[in-house]
Amino acid sequence: MTLDRPRVLVVGGGFGGLYAARALRASAARVTVVDRTNHHLFQPLLYQAATATLAPSDITAPIRWLLRKQPNVEVLMASVDRIDVERREAVADGGALAIPYDYLILAAGARHSYFGHPEWETAAPGLKSIDDAIRIRQRVLLAFERAEKTGDEDRRRRELTFVIVGGGPTGVELAGMLPTIARDALAGDFRRVDTRRARVILLEGGPRLLPAYPAPLSEAARRSLEALGVEVRTGARVTHVARGVVEAGAERIHAATIVWAAGNEASPLGTSLGAPLDGMGRVVVEPDLSIPGHPEVFVVGDQAAMTSGGRPVPGVAPAAMQSGRWAAANVKRRIAGESTRAFRYLDKGDLATIGRYRAVARFGRVRVSGPLAWWLWLFVHILYLAGFRNRASVLVEWGYAFFTYQRGSRLITGLGRSPAA
Amino acid sequence: MTLDRPRVLVVGGGFGGLYAARALRASAARVTVVDRTNHHLFQPLLYQAATATLAPSDITAPIRWLLRKQPNVEVLMASVDRIDVERREAVADGGALAIPYDYLILAAGARHSYFGHPEWETAAPGLKSIDDAIRIRQRVLLAFERAEKTGDEDRRRRELTFVIVGGGPTGVELAGMLPTIARDALAGDFRRVDTRRARVILLEGGPRLLPAYPAPLSEAARRSLEALGVEVRTGARVTHVARGVVEAGAERIHAATIVWAAGNEASPLGTSLGAPLDGMGRVVVEPDLSIPGHPEVFVVGDQAAMTSGGRPVPGVAPAAMQSGRWAAANVKRRIAGESTRAFRYLDKGDLATIGRYRAVARFGRVRVSGPLAWWLWLFVHILYLAGFRNRASVLVEWGYAFFTYQRGSRLITGLGRSPAA
Repeated sequence: MTLDRPRVLVVGGGFGGLYAARALRASAARVTVVDRTNHHLFQPLLYQAATATLAPSDITAPIRWLLRKQPNVEVLMASVDRIDVERREAVADGGALAIPYDYLILAAGARHSYFGHPEWETAAPGLKSIDDAIRIRQRVLLAFERAEKTGDEDRRRRELTFVIVGGGPTGVELAGMLPTIARDALAGDFRRVDTRRARVILLEGGPRLLPAYPAPLSEAARRSLEALGVEVRTGARVTHVARGVVEAGAERIHAATIVWAAGNEASPLGTSLGAPLDGMGRVVVEPDLSIPGHPEVFVVGDQAAMTSGGRPVPGVAPAAMQSGRWAAANVKRRIAGESTRAFRYLDKGDLATIGRYRAVARFGRVRVSGPLAWWLWLFVHILYLAGFRNRASVLVEWGYAFFTYQRGSRLITGLGRSPAA
Repeated sequence: MTLDRPRVLVVGGGFGGLYAARALRASAARVTVVDRTNHHLFQPLLYQAATATLAPSDITAPIRWLLRKQPNVEVLMASVDRIDVERREAVADGGALAIPYDYLILAAGARHSYFGHPEWETAAPGLKSIDDAIRIRQRVLLAFERAEKTGDEDRRRRELTFVIVGGGPTGVELAGMLPTIARDALAGDFRRVDTRRARVILLEGGPRLLPAYPAPLSEAARRSLEALGVEVRTGARVTHVARGVVEAGAERIHAATIVWAAGNEASPLGTSLGAPLDGMGRVVVEPDLSIPGHPEVFVVGDQAAMTSGGRPVPGVAPAAMQSGRWAAANVKRRIAGESTRAFRYLDKGDLATIGRYRAVARFGRVRVSGPLAWWLWLFVHILYLAGFRNRASVLVEWGYAFFTYQRGSRLITGLGRSPAA
């Protein structure tokens, strides 16, 4: 490598960053990928890790391992604090590390947002990272354990009540999985508690579930969830959350486990660019995914407010993959002295799974719900699952969970240690 | 169930407690198993989780799931604080829970001990629980990540130095696995660092490795480790440990990762029995595994100082299984009004694996080392692996690691969250 080869910095190892780095495989650029974790996360299956169906390592793979065969790529595990667009460098690890670039692809993603109530997070954790999933899995499993050992019937009821806030895909998928766990996986393992009595309540502030999907699929999702016993409340805007209690309108629900799946906001890294942001903190990018005044800076995935053909692009995994790849192509065009091209998003449809056999799906104008959609979902996810090593293991786990109703990864970790048993 | 069926309390869900509970399957007793975690741990493979070869869920299974088909058994996840032998109850969860018993089988195991220096633990964590393994895995993987991003050659050397304190089976197995990771699994994934330059140093205070094994096997283990590049120092008694530094005699070693595998002490629960303890805090039991003056209390596994035919029983997994089963049989004899029998330990030999292909083994008077011992080790461990669901998954992971040199579970978790990538 010579020093005058252009340096491309990719911030974030999610779908956007990973697909950008891969698309730079055949380029002359030296690529650095930075992420604050060591792993790429297959986010569409995160709810399965949170519900103890898959192990954390089934849906993650080391970023440097995924990119090991690209000699022009190096991977650094570091926490980027800000971008200095004038000096063209990323400042990381509290200033200990400065990473210069000629081109930047920013793909730092989004986190859940609490609509101005960050204090709700402790009581109602969100689900974005693998650590989030481990935390939620721990809370769900501990609730059943505490229910088993209490003699207090009120307390037992609270322990067996689970509230999911937010009726988007994550909320729907979580809510659909919990009854399956309670009724099928756990039922035979407890003696004092009838785990099938667990209540799962899904609160959605708007008028229907899956607001980004066609209305008939929202209705199908609601029917599927209700068939599983989930209490679906639409028009239920949450006004207060504290440890063990949620208020939505006039209703006050006591629940030991509350999970937040209601809103997203982009990584605050975007603020350091000096570019316009939208209401969710996303960087409003030009049609070619660069930012105004800095044609060498691209923003992709959940961190960007992107348009395609004048229409907004949804914050879904395929959009992150496509925009990452597209930004990389534009970087290559600029290195070659060509002009960049406006991003064109190819809508591959929407898919959300509900419990063990059902899903709702849209491909173009085709809408499917029920078992067929579920099999489509399974096929698509195995096809896309990054970290190719994981495929066999995930299949084993899924097959196992599917045919035996057992959860493969009911492990509670991180409780701290005490010497007694 | 009627209330006058005898209540047997088993404290601890490790090998001793699990095998005791299983042996009570066909009994009239009502059995309660208490553990502070929700899972049984297959401890002989713990070093593989600590070195990122197996996922934590591969070597654990929920205790209540393992015992789900025994209707006379209930499982409680609770932290037992002390035993009240006079009132015949276990006090748990800071006094919130009291569990009465007619018969007690105490199997709370052991933890690592620091020879009177508990302050060494932060700098040199030990390996007993799955949380310990996750912590050590994190430290090992982070050391390589930090080495990759530092520009300071001294720092890089420290990051790539790994010290294992203690030359028993755990220390030998950990030390044998680290070069395999550094040279085979990670080598191609790093750009700035040559991971093959990692130093692994094994410090043993006594004159030879594996002191409980026959001397020729100690020598074979040393040769195997040295062939892998491990620096083996016997007679190297550790005199000081602090973050990043170990002193053994006149030598001072700077190492970012230090793991403690040097000593054990029994769970402090034994102290509440009022029975005699040995130097390691183990309860000195009668030949039938009960304690003096309390024929209804049995202590088994690593928590007990047991004899068989007048000779001390070693603190190994088969001894825990056998003593758990034996104590259960003695409980059944007492329920039936029969007299108890003295424990007879069947020595199944010793097995320790070294890296990818080698092991040392003793079966009675037969001693084996090298690849044959390794295949024996593999066979025995798959055979015994509890949590029968895990077998397929473990085989997939092992097969994968073996044939591709890749680590299946190189996941760093639990670093806390920051919103930036």
